[in-house]
Amino acid sequence: MDMRQVNSLSYEEFVETFGNVVERCPVVAAAVWSGRPFANSHDLEASIGEFIDSLPVAGQEGIVRCHPDLAGRDLKRGALTAESRGEQTQAGLTLLDAGDAARMNRLNAQYKERFGFPFVICARMNNKEEILLRLAERLGNEPAQERQCAIEEVKKICQLRLQDIIQCPATHTKL
Amino acid sequence: MDMRQVNSLSYEEFVETFGNVVERCPVVAAAVWSGRPFANSHDLEASIGEFIDSLPVAGQEGIVRCHPDLAGRDLKRGALTAESRGEQTQAGLTLLDAGDAARMNRLNAQYKERFGFPFVICARMNNKEEILLRLAERLGNEPAQERQCAIEEVKKICQLRLQDIIQCPATHTKL
Repeated sequence: MDMRQVNSLSYEEFVETFGNVVERCPVVAAAVWSGRPFANSHDLEASIGEFIDSLPVAGQEGIVRCHPDLAGRDLKRGALTAESRGEQTQAGLTLLDAGDAARMNRLNAQYKERFGFPFVICARMNNKEEILLRLAERLGNEPAQERQCAIEEVKKICQLRLQDIIQCPATHTKL
Repeated sequence: MDMRQVNSLSYEEFVETFGNVVERCPVVAAAVWSGRPFANSHDLEASIGEFIDSLPVAGQEGIVRCHPDLAGRDLKRGALTAESRGEQTQAGLTLLDAGDAARMNRLNAQYKERFGFPFVICARMNNKEEILLRLAERLGNEPAQERQCAIEEVKKICQLRLQDIIQCPATHTKL
């Protein structure tokens, strides 16, 4: 899809297309549609980032809470969104050995107990070893710092999901 | 469910339970969980209302855009949420005659063209005649006034959905 097409979408089509660029938060796409037209995918990405930043703290925590655990219950019961399943698979989280799986479960539980939201990381930018390492590290963060860290990961995930949907003219058009 | 149970829910259980009290916006329940414990259902309802009011204008428009048309495409293709299907059925919107159905379609389209979001009304507080009347009336509103009107209807829908989930002690307990 190119930007001309993106900017011609009705709000219903826009939410169908971009409703999961922020995991399980179609209201984010529904909100930023108000700011169309977008010059390019970076402009749309920036609008989403600014919208998230404009939310009250509880709203940002809410966004993080809409994300599934990594290698967690939703993966096991096949309840992940298509995007999340692809990302967790690519990071190797569907093939954890028993030791890593137990460690991930234990750290995820500690993290949720400490912060009241799940550990979110852009799985496509990290492999399973890096994910486990960062999870253990981030458990030591202060809550406000960690909320900000989680939101920055939400934005990275969003960036890659947008790139999956929107064609970059430079890579598809002969200049 | 009573308030003791509500206040003991993890954020995951809370979102599973209250994730659709604002239509297709589980992030709202995920956000207000930060404000627990809630004294009673009115307190939870007020927290949701305050959260919605705290959103930027685009966020409020986004919430309205997550609602389906009344007697629209999602009803016809069986894609409504369970709550919305029940409410539209109760209001008689599944049994419109051809003339009313055509009028509803035409007015819904005019409304979306004018405001950039769908017509939202608490269907359980109105029958199909009242809904058609209000739709025609509200088409004449100014955009900012109409956005506020839509948000107030979102809150009424939320109030009734909360009442479906949370027991009111006065009606269940001998005083």
